[in-house]
Amino acid sequence: MIDESQSYFNKPIDSQEFIQRITKLLDKINTFKSSTECYKFFIEEYHVGFIDYKVANELRKYPNIFIFDDKNEYSRIDLETFEDRTKAIEEVLNDLKEKNLFKTLNGWRNEHYFVRKSFNSKALMSIERAGACLFGTRSYGCHINGYIKKNNEYFMWIARRSKTKQTYPFMLDNFVAGGLTAGLSVFECAKKELEEEAGLTIELSSRLKSTDAISYSYQNGSEIHIEGEFIFDIKLPSDFVPKNQDGEVFCFYLMNIHQVKNAIISDEFKPNSAVVTLNFLMRKDLLTPDELPNYFEILENIHKPGL
Amino acid sequence: MIDESQSYFNKPIDSQEFIQRITKLLDKINTFKSSTECYKFFIEEYHVGFIDYKVANELRKYPNIFIFDDKNEYSRIDLETFEDRTKAIEEVLNDLKEKNLFKTLNGWRNEHYFVRKSFNSKALMSIERAGACLFGTRSYGCHINGYIKKNNEYFMWIARRSKTKQTYPFMLDNFVAGGLTAGLSVFECAKKELEEEAGLTIELSSRLKSTDAISYSYQNGSEIHIEGEFIFDIKLPSDFVPKNQDGEVFCFYLMNIHQVKNAIISDEFKPNSAVVTLNFLMRKDLLTPDELPNYFEILENIHKPGL
Repeated sequence: MIDESQSYFNKPIDSQEFIQRITKLLDKINTFKSSTECYKFFIEEYHVGFIDYKVANELRKYPNIFIFDDKNEYSRIDLETFEDRTKAIEEVLNDLKEKNLFKTLNGWRNEHYFVRKSFNSKALMSIERAGACLFGTRSYGCHINGYIKKNNEYFMWIARRSKTKQTYPFMLDNFVAGGLTAGLSVFECAKKELEEEAGLTIELSSRLKSTDAISYSYQNGSEIHIEGEFIFDIKLPSDFVPKNQDGEVFCFYLMNIHQVKNAIISDEFKPNSAVVTLNFLMRKDLLTPDELPNYFEILENIHKPGL
Repeated sequence: MIDESQSYFNKPIDSQEFIQRITKLLDKINTFKSSTECYKFFIEEYHVGFIDYKVANELRKYPNIFIFDDKNEYSRIDLETFEDRTKAIEEVLNDLKEKNLFKTLNGWRNEHYFVRKSFNSKALMSIERAGACLFGTRSYGCHINGYIKKNNEYFMWIARRSKTKQTYPFMLDNFVAGGLTAGLSVFECAKKELEEEAGLTIELSSRLKSTDAISYSYQNGSEIHIEGEFIFDIKLPSDFVPKNQDGEVFCFYLMNIHQVKNAIISDEFKPNSAVVTLNFLMRKDLLTPDELPNYFEILENIHKPGL
């Protein structure tokens, strides 16, 4: 099922241009600088996020919930329990959604993320996924590279997102990817996504291997995205064909590595998923230090602490 | 050849203690803070290293070679060409060696490292390996995980360094590791080390795969170590037995993964090599995000930009 509509990914790759485009890709997912105009956001004594000044101006209208310091540096949620905070933030986000102030809230998911100091530490509150970027709290996801090996050659399954996705519609994506929602272990989450997005049986998804994780943060207007993605690989049978179950995938392509390289430097690939694919190529000896003069810079740029 | 003298690595592992010891290990390789008492070291307009105040006091005795600013912030080498700088630094280091001021120079190797702004950029000078840490210039090495798979179970070849090694004598180490000396490509260097340290034939060493790299920096008295290690894996035949050729290895152990985990949290393992081994376990699904609550922090701490 090598889709011929992707035949332009067969074009030759100029190694200088490849490196320049990879550098651009990394710049794209690393635009947030904590020195920019924002408040550090605290829950209890923990620094858990960042709030842009424009968002802060709206949050000031809820003085019973948020405290801001005089120096324009810190913001704190002034409620004592997980439940109270979660309820208050939900109400504020609903309010902001009705006011139609922040585009991200049009993509309301009814899917909650835990807010914690670090992954696996105590959950301090829970927040609607679409609202997390207004508080710059760290979001976690899992991305899965699906691949096959034929005659010692690698091929990767690359998804095209459905046209109706809230974010990055119709763009290329990893075989399977999803946000890490509250209450599931990382492996449970990855296996659930494998079933929903590519129709894998329990038997097949037991082949899943955890391999790495990437950290990065970018700003998009008033949205501050502090993100961490767990990376998994799954080696699939060569006759396997993925079947999307949840309508989130338009189609799947089986690409050879040359096509994959062209795809990740095209503007068609969702940026963080392109980086996950780049990381796969580096881990699998398909892009080597002798080919990538900026090998260290790439790895340092995809493992940046967010907070 | 599972060496029974290592049987104490069979002891049970407490998961809490394991995580604490991993955290300690990462602290050990990340002690350098660029805000500490040191000069930024420049060649031309490029920031290429750090010089501790104690080293700087000695270098001030060569005013024809080094310039220091009034604010105790910057130091620059005042020579125009690669050759002139290399020759001058060699003379200074020989001088300091004779004065017996810095212990590192007793380990003189007659092995040169290039000094560059970043890996693969223009070489600005070349410096004796043992002296690089006095200028805090970035050193590169390659570390190779040698492993076998038997009945779907991983085993790793772990070396014990010879008693006469200049650094970390008799400690545990990766299968093969070495500094990246001037003039060789990364793969050439790795293959040379495979031959010298473990007696691999060209045919066997063609199995070598590049997989990752780690960056970290630590201070040891006046020595500032800014380091980057390319990481390779090599899957070996299960009947293969390594034979050291250059006297740098005391012996090799074939360890199961439980023993490897105990080894990397013991104080017997050379710290950066323990981290390379930890990285292998993470990449191979032998330590997963659900087992390591600090999965992101680990990865962020082993990919820290040095300069």
